[in-house]
Amino acid sequence: MTSALILIANGTEEMEFTITYDTLVRGGVSCTSAFVPDSESSPGENKAKCSRGLVVTPDTILASVENSAVADYDLLVIPGGAKGAETMSGSAVVQALVRDFLYKQKYVGMICAGSLAAKTAKLPRQPLTSHPSVKEALEQDFEYSEDPVVLSGKLITSRGPGTAFPFALTLVELLCGKEARDSVYGPMVFPPGTPW
Amino acid sequence: MTSALILIANGTEEMEFTITYDTLVRGGVSCTSAFVPDSESSPGENKAKCSRGLVVTPDTILASVENSAVADYDLLVIPGGAKGAETMSGSAVVQALVRDFLYKQKYVGMICAGSLAAKTAKLPRQPLTSHPSVKEALEQDFEYSEDPVVLSGKLITSRGPGTAFPFALTLVELLCGKEARDSVYGPMVFPPGTPW
Repeated sequence: MTSALILIANGTEEMEFTITYDTLVRGGVSCTSAFVPDSESSPGENKAKCSRGLVVTPDTILASVENSAVADYDLLVIPGGAKGAETMSGSAVVQALVRDFLYKQKYVGMICAGSLAAKTAKLPRQPLTSHPSVKEALEQDFEYSEDPVVLSGKLITSRGPGTAFPFALTLVELLCGKEARDSVYGPMVFPPGTPW
Repeated sequence: MTSALILIANGTEEMEFTITYDTLVRGGVSCTSAFVPDSESSPGENKAKCSRGLVVTPDTILASVENSAVADYDLLVIPGGAKGAETMSGSAVVQALVRDFLYKQKYVGMICAGSLAAKTAKLPRQPLTSHPSVKEALEQDFEYSEDPVVLSGKLITSRGPGTAFPFALTLVELLCGKEARDSVYGPMVFPPGTPW
């Protein structure tokens, strides 16, 4: 079964995290959320307080999956939220996972400030987008785009909560095909004229 | 400070819940999520397993706020997700809250299958929408609409995850004004052409 590892930390943007997780599950992807600890986390702690106060219990912690993640998952997702993205992009484990997934030709999705991990993982210059608030930190090292979703090989980047649905639907289509995307799309009941 | 009580139960649609909660917080609304127990819940239990597996720790439990809710909050929100909406719409406490909020001229928002609570609370015939999957259960008792967001006095209804952003932004505007809605809208980075 196609599977995704979706990172979460204190300060993660809960809409970006939840829309991606839920939409991938609807598309038939087996999703595992993994908590990335920060400097204030106790060892083994597994509860994320998100950017607007939502408290989530992740499926597992990063330390439990980091060694087998590249073998076990088809997609790695790094959501935004300033504080959560700072924790993830600053983690040497996450940086190595980003490089390893791409090296093994597996997908990596980054949205909002999550795109900072492309820089800290020292990915080569390529097309990329992010939340406008971190554009300045990225535009020198990447071919910065303002498209809602940017595909560059196996790296998919996006902009914010408002682009989280097209980001997640793109991931469903890449992993499971157009038919899976279509089957997910209908029951969500997007308003007429929605541009994705 | 303007405040909202957002219900959550096992089986709640996590995107509808999270988008509403997060967007209202961004708009300056003080949000409290309250767990509505089902027949399998232990007394005092406060953890919701949502429809696609997200595990959320709500801010409080319904029993702790039910007596003062109408005095304390300006808005009551009932999200969808088949199982969660069944629990909420079947709860005599929730039914009474819906009636009491509207009687006191406070706002009530229902989205997706959450609109079933309009029927179980025996609200008078009026314009309403819901997820298409529960249209049949509602169209005889209400002036059923397929608009993404339907306003009927203080009752605001909507359709599904795909309409959760316009639903939540409408609630922000009603509670906090157009300026608050605009200040929330920009940083979300919706794609060009988004119809809300």
